[in-house]
Amino acid sequence: MRPSKRQPDSLRPLILNAGFSRNAEGSCLIQCGNTHVICTATIESGVPSFLKNTGKGWVTAEYGMLPRSTNSRIPREAAKGKQSGRTQEIQRLIGRSLRSVVDLKLLGERQITIDCDVIEADGGTRTASITGAYVALHYAVGSLLKAGLIKQSPITGQVAAVSCGIYKGVPVLDLDYDEDSAATMDANFVLTADGRIIEIQCTAEEKPVEEEQFSALFALAKLGIKELAEAQKKAMGL
Amino acid sequence: MRPSKRQPDSLRPLILNAGFSRNAEGSCLIQCGNTHVICTATIESGVPSFLKNTGKGWVTAEYGMLPRSTNSRIPREAAKGKQSGRTQEIQRLIGRSLRSVVDLKLLGERQITIDCDVIEADGGTRTASITGAYVALHYAVGSLLKAGLIKQSPITGQVAAVSCGIYKGVPVLDLDYDEDSAATMDANFVLTADGRIIEIQCTAEEKPVEEEQFSALFALAKLGIKELAEAQKKAMGL
Amino acid sequence: MRPSKRQPDSLRPLILNAGFSRNAEGSCLIQCGNTHVICTATIESGVPSFLKNTGKGWVTAEYGMLPRSTNSRIPREAAKGKQSGRTQEIQRLIGRSLRSVVDLKLLGERQITIDCDVIEADGGTRTASITGAYVALHYAVGSLLKAGLIKQSPITGQVAAVSCGIYKGVPVLDLDYDEDSAATMDANFVLTADGRIIEIQCTAEEKPVEEEQFSALFALAKLGIKELAEAQKKAMGL
Amino acid sequence: MRPSKRQPDSLRPLILNAGFSRNAEGSCLIQCGNTHVICTATIESGVPSFLKNTGKGWVTAEYGMLPRSTNSRIPREAAKGKQSGRTQEIQRLIGRSLRSVVDLKLLGERQITIDCDVIEADGGTRTASITGAYVALHYAVGSLLKAGLIKQSPITGQVAAVSCGIYKGVPVLDLDYDEDSAATMDANFVLTADGRIIEIQCTAEEKPVEEEQFSALFALAKLGIKELAEAQKKAMGL
Amino acid sequence: MRPSKRQPDSLRPLILNAGFSRNAEGSCLIQCGNTHVICTATIESGVPSFLKNTGKGWVTAEYGMLPRSTNSRIPREAAKGKQSGRTQEIQRLIGRSLRSVVDLKLLGERQITIDCDVIEADGGTRTASITGAYVALHYAVGSLLKAGLIKQSPITGQVAAVSCGIYKGVPVLDLDYDEDSAATMDANFVLTADGRIIEIQCTAEEKPVEEEQFSALFALAKLGIKELAEAQKKAMGL
Amino acid sequence: MRPSKRQPDSLRPLILNAGFSRNAEGSCLIQCGNTHVICTATIESGVPSFLKNTGKGWVTAEYGMLPRSTNSRIPREAAKGKQSGRTQEIQRLIGRSLRSVVDLKLLGERQITIDCDVIEADGGTRTASITGAYVALHYAVGSLLKAGLIKQSPITGQVAAVSCGIYKGVPVLDLDYDEDSAATMDANFVLTADGRIIEIQCTAEEKPVEEEQFSALFALAKLGIKELAEAQKKAMGL
Repeated sequence: MRPSKRQPDSLRPLILNAGFSRNAEGSCLIQCGNTHVICTATIESGVPSFLKNTGKGWVTAEYGMLPRSTNSRIPREAAKGKQSGRTQEIQRLIGRSLRSVVDLKLLGERQITIDCDVIEADGGTRTASITGAYVALHYAVGSLLKAGLIKQSPITGQVAAVSCGIYKGVPVLDLDYDEDSAATMDANFVLTADGRIIEIQCTAEEKPVEEEQFSALFALAKLGIKELAEAQKKAMGL
Repeated sequence: MRPSKRQPDSLRPLILNAGFSRNAEGSCLIQCGNTHVICTATIESGVPSFLKNTGKGWVTAEYGMLPRSTNSRIPREAAKGKQSGRTQEIQRLIGRSLRSVVDLKLLGERQITIDCDVIEADGGTRTASITGAYVALHYAVGSLLKAGLIKQSPITGQVAAVSCGIYKGVPVLDLDYDEDSAATMDANFVLTADGRIIEIQCTAEEKPVEEEQFSALFALAKLGIKELAEAQKKAMGL
Repeated sequence: MRPSKRQPDSLRPLILNAGFSRNAEGSCLIQCGNTHVICTATIESGVPSFLKNTGKGWVTAEYGMLPRSTNSRIPREAAKGKQSGRTQEIQRLIGRSLRSVVDLKLLGERQITIDCDVIEADGGTRTASITGAYVALHYAVGSLLKAGLIKQSPITGQVAAVSCGIYKGVPVLDLDYDEDSAATMDANFVLTADGRIIEIQCTAEEKPVEEEQFSALFALAKLGIKELAEAQKKAMGL
Repeated sequence: MRPSKRQPDSLRPLILNAGFSRNAEGSCLIQCGNTHVICTATIESGVPSFLKNTGKGWVTAEYGMLPRSTNSRIPREAAKGKQSGRTQEIQRLIGRSLRSVVDLKLLGERQITIDCDVIEADGGTRTASITGAYVALHYAVGSLLKAGLIKQSPITGQVAAVSCGIYKGVPVLDLDYDEDSAATMDANFVLTADGRIIEIQCTAEEKPVEEEQFSALFALAKLGIKELAEAQKKAMGL
Repeated sequence: MRPSKRQPDSLRPLILNAGFSRNAEGSCLIQCGNTHVICTATIESGVPSFLKNTGKGWVTAEYGMLPRSTNSRIPREAAKGKQSGRTQEIQRLIGRSLRSVVDLKLLGERQITIDCDVIEADGGTRTASITGAYVALHYAVGSLLKAGLIKQSPITGQVAAVSCGIYKGVPVLDLDYDEDSAATMDANFVLTADGRIIEIQCTAEEKPVEEEQFSALFALAKLGIKELAEAQKKAMGL
Repeated sequence: MRPSKRQPDSLRPLILNAGFSRNAEGSCLIQCGNTHVICTATIESGVPSFLKNTGKGWVTAEYGMLPRSTNSRIPREAAKGKQSGRTQEIQRLIGRSLRSVVDLKLLGERQITIDCDVIEADGGTRTASITGAYVALHYAVGSLLKAGLIKQSPITGQVAAVSCGIYKGVPVLDLDYDEDSAATMDANFVLTADGRIIEIQCTAEEKPVEEEQFSALFALAKLGIKELAEAQKKAMGL
């Protein structure tokens, strides 16, 4: 039995609130149960130096947690003067995931920065960030199309993400914090709406696990991604 | 005529959503027009080293803005590796303002940290932070009383804050961003509900101003603080 | 009775030693009793990026204290690897105060940096810095005029600063450290020689204060600024 | 055809030089073709604060590259003042991988730090680091057993790692730099000698890939890990 | 002919103003021509962790330059967030030089920190710092003796320092900035009053030099140190 | 008797392995007994900003130690976020020493960076770095000549370095760590192959020493440098 009373293959209640931000070119507040992330997309002209004069654009992401988004307060990274290894790992993952469905040539020499800021955290913040970031990216690209700055959408696929894990010996979908802390294996799947792989990160906690367990998690993830992709489509008005 | 169509002595629409955060000991989402700030209060045992073994507690604040809370994205302070002078100035102001209405002896050797995170910015973020932080502090202290950890509330006064300025020659209350950018004088007033002074910061923009103009702003501020204090009382269930 | 035996409206003995520095384009060693600050003005071509190609110049300030300018040694900021919030707050204040009496268009695309370094500290270092910095600025501008680099002085007013406070219930002028530590209200006034407001910072210590007390401090400040402005004039040979 | 002329399922020439370091409690210089990593294990008493008085020990890792281990020089992280996101990601992975085969209770309140320093880099530095680090860890634990500081080895499994990828449409084992740069999918497998999963990181480059391709990589990885585990056993004298 | 018109073996005009600082336990403003350095000595209980419970004390130094002590402004190290390699090199030299004449056992478990802050720079700031720091140290030790905190002076020798160099082919004593910039060899000698060596740093500029030139500089240095030591004695009232 | 059983004027066994690095334009692994340093030379177009458009090139050095190159692990500088004063001092010395034998005009507007990374440390790492760095530099310059990028070698002399010290009252050559820790005087000599001075750093440990002792060390150093220079020549194929 899951602490959340959910079935092994149930997602948490999901709300995607697109256009949440008054200022950003694209935005989405994603709520996966008690995990709430504000995702905003900012378009800026110019690209990092390694892309200058290549005609290619760039998509990148930054991630942060409000100090009291968690049960006990975590020190503010700005005050500590550096981002933790975990933060950097997550924002690199979000950026890579989005870039895998963007044709940077079609984007042109501009950068889209997706900020994912966790307002409330209850497990799965990185996967929620990716799912919400994709919606924010969609709207930012829409604004470029509307303004006639690009002719064709550079987005080549739809991406969503979900975590799965082995909780008390049972493979379950969309771990919340209580489950995550007790899981013997924790895997994050970043997939396209049609089930292709963008990124898999799978970590055994405390001791190694068998390959079949990984396969069970993968199967659950594909179910979850379908639901998430449907919700994204609605939020994008498709 | 104000860009916002408000009367010179009108506050922006004000919403104080206490208990916004699932985790914090006290919290308040304050919305002053398009300025939205999440204020959370965290209680931790222990105090900074200069207070160890004095029997006194401490109240402090930290402040941050989401990168895209503003019209154009501001770089993330955690990524830059340091907090700006402006950020430090603001969080020092919030902390001082709250401490002026707390009896640190009665609080005992514990620290309350108020995090003020700006989700949307449209001018007046520091004053909104103080007004919301007070409500968060109130609930955090309430939780200490409820738990029997302290016998008597250490809160000795009620504090709110508002900005005023000279806009096109007219003293106006509660500047939004458009007004703030064009104001020739900008003043922040941190007052008690009964009009006593906690902190005044008054800055002439571009050129010095006459004393009467300052007096006009002070008068407006007292009006505004009364309304803010009423709203705080409601949010605190008083 | 003040620890310094001064009358409530007496400034500390004041010495303005203009031209103290062999190298700087303008300089002033200001001594307000036991508070001694070296102020130097440096002219450099070029402006911060937000002003490039605007034809406007910039005036900015930096502030520091020698580690043993105080009674107990304070850690060196260069060794700690960052400037404290207090330092940044003060140098921002000095910069703003000076800019309010400079026509940046007339200055042209160059930057004047005022360094205020506290050699001995006994309260009132930020106000002494402003008063001395103005003299250093005056001489730096004079060197530009003399060199024919500008035709007309961009300085539009004369600025000085002083602190006041409520000490043992009595409003007093120009607090030294002993008074400052015991004051129930502390206010810094940055005014023009003719009494107009550039900046007011007023902070109640420990508990809120009445408006009349603030008014009393303001009145004292205007007296003090007159004396300071006279001393500045002498130091500027006017 | 691979640039290296290797068969799709061939590892690069592999040398494990245990005891390479004169000073460390355990060490191994691992050479996977032109990727050379010095792995040293240091035993220190004491554990991170979150483990104090729990009776548990800790195993952690740090990773670095000599500036000219690569084809074009990379800036020295110590000179830049921070470790890159990539570095932190890698050292977190190495630490997690080793901890998954260590019973921290049996280790007792001491910390083993594995330093993995890349002397020459030609792809696969993180997986080589894990494979070599395990050997260094083995010898460090041996020194504890020999000294009678622990009675029973806390090591509960044998861990090795290898990368695989899709190169020109073909799944290949143990990518070198040239293959890595051109691969459409890149996966790192951290497995036990008997094929159980410790960590999988799989990333599609530029566009999403099908699940079967992932399965092909997994199959190759299991082959590679067997060989690596054999080499480790020899290097450990087992 | 030296730009300063001095004889090859002439020091610059020298003033040692002991007791310059109102607050420090010992202090000296040293003026060597246009090089002016404030040296203050601070006594604090406690020692660095590597000396805890050894009964030994510690003497250390910090060094800084006011931004406009030089002809063109140098960026403030506190603002840049780190001390330059040059600064660290100099403060390490000052600390080592002083420790070589202090019996740390006799000092007891306390630390003396010498701050050397350059107010005006015209070459030779590190050697002037050492010469002045010794006087400040002397007075700090005197205050410990006077307070009965130690019974016997831990100072075992008298140290001074001077620079020499080859200027236009001629060995000269006590280089000022103009000479220093043009010198083909630059050497700093830290000697005791009776001519024993504490530290020598000798650097050929642009090309290697012959041993005899070094010997000539050493001879000059011994002359200079005698004069400096006499001036120190007067400043110490001996 | 030296702990190493060496004669007072004996160097440690010396191996210079030129071309050690697969990637660098020039490289040398130098082994002086148990002190092993990898020296690589990297050629990059462009120079630091103070040399732009002067036609001159630049030679600089960076230095690092692997955390477990020493008997007890030293914290990784990249993880601490800054290079120690000792590291900066050493890399500045290496850079200066090399520049003293390079005609920067002949090098042209390019930079050669020598990285000296200590793999095993047993005293004398800075002098070994200089000796090895010279060989790496030689090969890097050779690659420029071979490529026709320069017509004439900018190298104007041959440089090597060695440490000497007073150990148990006896002047000895090429200190290892055990001797270094116990020496009463420690001197580093950077000389040309024909005995001219590039840099001398001589430090008395704990108490001042007589001039004759310094002279004895200098004599030993000249012997040692000759042997080192011979070994360099062999390593350079001369």
